[in-house]
Amino acid sequence: MAFVQDFTWKEGITVKDLVKDFGAIGYQSIELARAKESIVKMKKASAKIFLTFTSNMVTSGLRGFFAQLVRLGMADVLVTTAGAIEEDIMKAMGERFAIGSFSSDDVELHERGDNRIGNLVVTNESYCELEDKLLPMLDKIYAKQQRLTVSELLKEIGLQLDDENSILYQAAKHDVPVFCPGITDGSLGFHLFMYQQKHDDFIIDVVKDFKKIVLCTSHDDTKGVIALGGSISKHHAILACLLNGGARYAVYMTTARSTSGSMSGATTNEAKSWGKVQDDSDVSTVIGDVTITFPIAMIAALEELKEEGLLDG
Amino acid sequence: MAFVQDFTWKEGITVKDLVKDFGAIGYQSIELARAKESIVKMKKASAKIFLTFTSNMVTSGLRGFFAQLVRLGMADVLVTTAGAIEEDIMKAMGERFAIGSFSSDDVELHERGDNRIGNLVVTNESYCELEDKLLPMLDKIYAKQQRLTVSELLKEIGLQLDDENSILYQAAKHDVPVFCPGITDGSLGFHLFMYQQKHDDFIIDVVKDFKKIVLCTSHDDTKGVIALGGSISKHHAILACLLNGGARYAVYMTTARSTSGSMSGATTNEAKSWGKVQDDSDVSTVIGDVTITFPIAMIAALEELKEEGLLDG
Amino acid sequence: MAFVQDFTWKEGITVKDLVKDFGAIGYQSIELARAKESIVKMKKASAKIFLTFTSNMVTSGLRGFFAQLVRLGMADVLVTTAGAIEEDIMKAMGERFAIGSFSSDDVELHERGDNRIGNLVVTNESYCELEDKLLPMLDKIYAKQQRLTVSELLKEIGLQLDDENSILYQAAKHDVPVFCPGITDGSLGFHLFMYQQKHDDFIIDVVKDFKKIVLCTSHDDTKGVIALGGSISKHHAILACLLNGGARYAVYMTTARSTSGSMSGATTNEAKSWGKVQDDSDVSTVIGDVTITFPIAMIAALEELKEEGLLDG
Amino acid sequence: MAFVQDFTWKEGITVKDLVKDFGAIGYQSIELARAKESIVKMKKASAKIFLTFTSNMVTSGLRGFFAQLVRLGMADVLVTTAGAIEEDIMKAMGERFAIGSFSSDDVELHERGDNRIGNLVVTNESYCELEDKLLPMLDKIYAKQQRLTVSELLKEIGLQLDDENSILYQAAKHDVPVFCPGITDGSLGFHLFMYQQKHDDFIIDVVKDFKKIVLCTSHDDTKGVIALGGSISKHHAILACLLNGGARYAVYMTTARSTSGSMSGATTNEAKSWGKVQDDSDVSTVIGDVTITFPIAMIAALEELKEEGLLDG
Repeated sequence: MAFVQDFTWKEGITVKDLVKDFGAIGYQSIELARAKESIVKMKKASAKIFLTFTSNMVTSGLRGFFAQLVRLGMADVLVTTAGAIEEDIMKAMGERFAIGSFSSDDVELHERGDNRIGNLVVTNESYCELEDKLLPMLDKIYAKQQRLTVSELLKEIGLQLDDENSILYQAAKHDVPVFCPGITDGSLGFHLFMYQQKHDDFIIDVVKDFKKIVLCTSHDDTKGVIALGGSISKHHAILACLLNGGARYAVYMTTARSTSGSMSGATTNEAKSWGKVQDDSDVSTVIGDVTITFPIAMIAALEELKEEGLLDG
Repeated sequence: MAFVQDFTWKEGITVKDLVKDFGAIGYQSIELARAKESIVKMKKASAKIFLTFTSNMVTSGLRGFFAQLVRLGMADVLVTTAGAIEEDIMKAMGERFAIGSFSSDDVELHERGDNRIGNLVVTNESYCELEDKLLPMLDKIYAKQQRLTVSELLKEIGLQLDDENSILYQAAKHDVPVFCPGITDGSLGFHLFMYQQKHDDFIIDVVKDFKKIVLCTSHDDTKGVIALGGSISKHHAILACLLNGGARYAVYMTTARSTSGSMSGATTNEAKSWGKVQDDSDVSTVIGDVTITFPIAMIAALEELKEEGLLDG
Repeated sequence: MAFVQDFTWKEGITVKDLVKDFGAIGYQSIELARAKESIVKMKKASAKIFLTFTSNMVTSGLRGFFAQLVRLGMADVLVTTAGAIEEDIMKAMGERFAIGSFSSDDVELHERGDNRIGNLVVTNESYCELEDKLLPMLDKIYAKQQRLTVSELLKEIGLQLDDENSILYQAAKHDVPVFCPGITDGSLGFHLFMYQQKHDDFIIDVVKDFKKIVLCTSHDDTKGVIALGGSISKHHAILACLLNGGARYAVYMTTARSTSGSMSGATTNEAKSWGKVQDDSDVSTVIGDVTITFPIAMIAALEELKEEGLLDG
Repeated sequence: MAFVQDFTWKEGITVKDLVKDFGAIGYQSIELARAKESIVKMKKASAKIFLTFTSNMVTSGLRGFFAQLVRLGMADVLVTTAGAIEEDIMKAMGERFAIGSFSSDDVELHERGDNRIGNLVVTNESYCELEDKLLPMLDKIYAKQQRLTVSELLKEIGLQLDDENSILYQAAKHDVPVFCPGITDGSLGFHLFMYQQKHDDFIIDVVKDFKKIVLCTSHDDTKGVIALGGSISKHHAILACLLNGGARYAVYMTTARSTSGSMSGATTNEAKSWGKVQDDSDVSTVIGDVTITFPIAMIAALEELKEEGLLDG
């Protein structure tokens, strides 16, 4: 039986050691330490790791971390939303997002051409830049192939980027598929629509992409899911696992609550009723802002996996 | 200046009168009363109303209410998620969802073939039934058209249902388009994929559907959004409005918080920075479970609109 | 087994009928319908009912409702916080609280002498008025008794008020004790301290008041708790029940979550581990803003109890 | 203007360096980095620091950290709740709290004599031990003084403990007053009541303690508040500051939301409307479980203050 331990600060404490202490503090710190354990175990078990995240996390500086995780071999499949794709491309083109405030005057921001995402700000200009850069990319892609899946589209885009911190770039380079079941839900949708206006045979085949995510793994694979935030990205990954016998490991990190029956707030326990994760699986749900909880849990896992020589690159 | 009023119960009080009292109680009751006002105003202004909801709400009994709202002319455009489509069809076929508990033993549920969604339960059988019924539908649809948009697909399905409480049925009957930008993110995705295996030219054209939602309204239209829950359905509707000059009225009802920069938790204020809603628009954000907040606000709005002869049917 | 029912609006629907429908909608609407059931049952069982609420609810218009509930015999013991006492007195003196906005400019409010509580506003003037009125009251009370418990103090104050909507007034009139274990945590604390400066033998005996709350019920009594919000008021009531064998009925309504181990977020399930509620008790936890959830559940309960002739007055 | 920076892991990263990176990630990570800044500033400005926490945090391993902070001179005044006092004493007597699960079977726990607090467990035995040890302590205290304030009582208890990780012990040793405005709200209340049964002149003078907290600082002092969680402990500290011209620095860490007007969820912005913090003060509100957010922010602050030679001990 484990007991609560009084925590005290030791000078120069590392993140790794803090997470060890977290395991005996209480409440979400314990769940976070468990999440780190689940991540270590899924890697040690050579699980196929599905990493999912939402757009706002790519707006944030977690974007570079996601790219790094792909490079280190910590993600075999990515699932995300349209906004995440757009912002990864914008940043790869040099756009910068400013740090603002949750209590900004939103009318004033609008007049300045600033768009608020929590305490971050994306300018209208960044969206215009995206348009300018995206069109020639689409021309190249269309020249090769007219009907393609979302993950094929994203790989082609990734190949045209050149930024170590880009998720699409690293994914393309390391052959990690990026799924985005709601690809049109963003300005990207608008650009694809405009492109199709000129080329009616330009088709994004979402149905074929479903086949690809289902067949990218198998019942025999050990599967792990790290779902950050909720939304369609979380659901899509665990659905792909469900159709392959369920995940053996699952870590959910979110601020959503389970009390309204939403997918975003659904816990790793609820997932067991569906077979989304296996009955005897190793799971943890951490409640909190992932810009804090995820780096901490993942850093501690990386330190341990590095020592054991289990990281790529 | 308005002041807090001491609330007291009067025997036989109607929902309409309670919402009137809510306007002077405090906190979210005031926001709920404001939401009702926004709904009344958007209808009086003959706004094009975008109603968005997530899958879990269709699992719940709100499904019949959404269908009724379509019938009453309270929704001109629907946006939702794949799970919502599936469950609307299941229920139209006579499947029933049981009431369970948030603290069920999920492993036990799994063994019984029960899938938990909060305190509700959907059986594996219901999913099997769906498969059986969907295939002949797809055959009919494919015979007419091989490449179709999501909203076209959903209209065709709706035409084949026969249930007054079905959202797809009422939407098809009243020519209200149903958009679902992440159509493959559910068992529906699996059935579409299996169907495409047999018919490679069967294509769901999500890009063309983006065109349809963008062109289903215009800058000249007055637009209103009622977004229940977050996710892709909320974002898609307000994106369509943004591309048409922004909504004049917006009501967001959610349990998500704004502190993590998520779309689900983004407030109607944040929307102003983007031009998703207009700077001088009439907006309200109500925090709470929509199975409680939405019926109350909407009922009070319906009672008022009925009196003014502004409801259809 | 109960099943989800499609909800539809019927013109002129009452709150009572809506709550009946809520029982088959889903998520928190079901929990709310269960809460109403628990309230009805505790009254039918002639339970001793502990009603607890926090200061912000008395700032709101729920204050009049709490007073009405005392009058109707729906509360045998009240437990609350210092702010609630202050604001009940202020309102009894004619002070009015304004309706503002959650996103006010707080520096501007401060300059105007306005104090924000969510979307409500209390003026500095109201606090000055309180001081003026409280001193003569304390003089009268001190003249009779120098050492008194909090509940005795609050009864004496209640006897000096004259406002049907005042909680203290109705409680004093109906001999319902009002406990406030943190009586000094507010401007009231300041006034008591100033008074004690002049009268050193003026003593508020909180220890004796603990005796009073523990002995105000017994193991043999059937006990019910309706805890609105969290804080010391919730804990104190269930502690008093625990020391008397635990409550048979318990309804918790709150926005706090259970994931951080706080008292405010603790569920009626957690309470079973402590014996705060009995193992086989009838309990429900409703997540949501109590300015919405409580009136609805309680109104539905009152309608039913009225029909059965179980309400006083 | 500050911009979002792509975060990447560097092997062996310390907590201090992570918090530096947090400042450019986004959402709550930025707020956490700001909180660290506020803490550093308040110490550099030699502010009188009010540290407040709730009972569940003392159940957790944060207890040792709070004791260490007192030792390091990072807290000049403590404000907490009755449960925190009890559990600090229990632990000082050698009681250990077990680590359990949020989804325990609470009826089973009850039968075993285990009491659940989130994912932690306190046994009935620990409560019995408390009773045994508390009585002789009260005898000693009563022999010296019959009428005493809460902070005097807690100092006397602290002097009788011998545990470096005890909050009361360190506070007594370093002459840091511990205020607990709701002292009777716990099993402590029961023991005090039993004691008073035998000694009617045993009086806990909460009114005089209010004087002590108000006079423990002054308008001239620079004041800082670090409020962990909500409840009476948070309110009491900022009230004491308000009565002395408001705090110059304030850090609130909580999971409570501001949308229901509760004290627990009130932000540092709302505090400005009251003058609880000064208009131009340095404030931050961090949303998240304090078992994670507080150690991280405080560790980073301690590292910086240590380097500058600003820590005691």
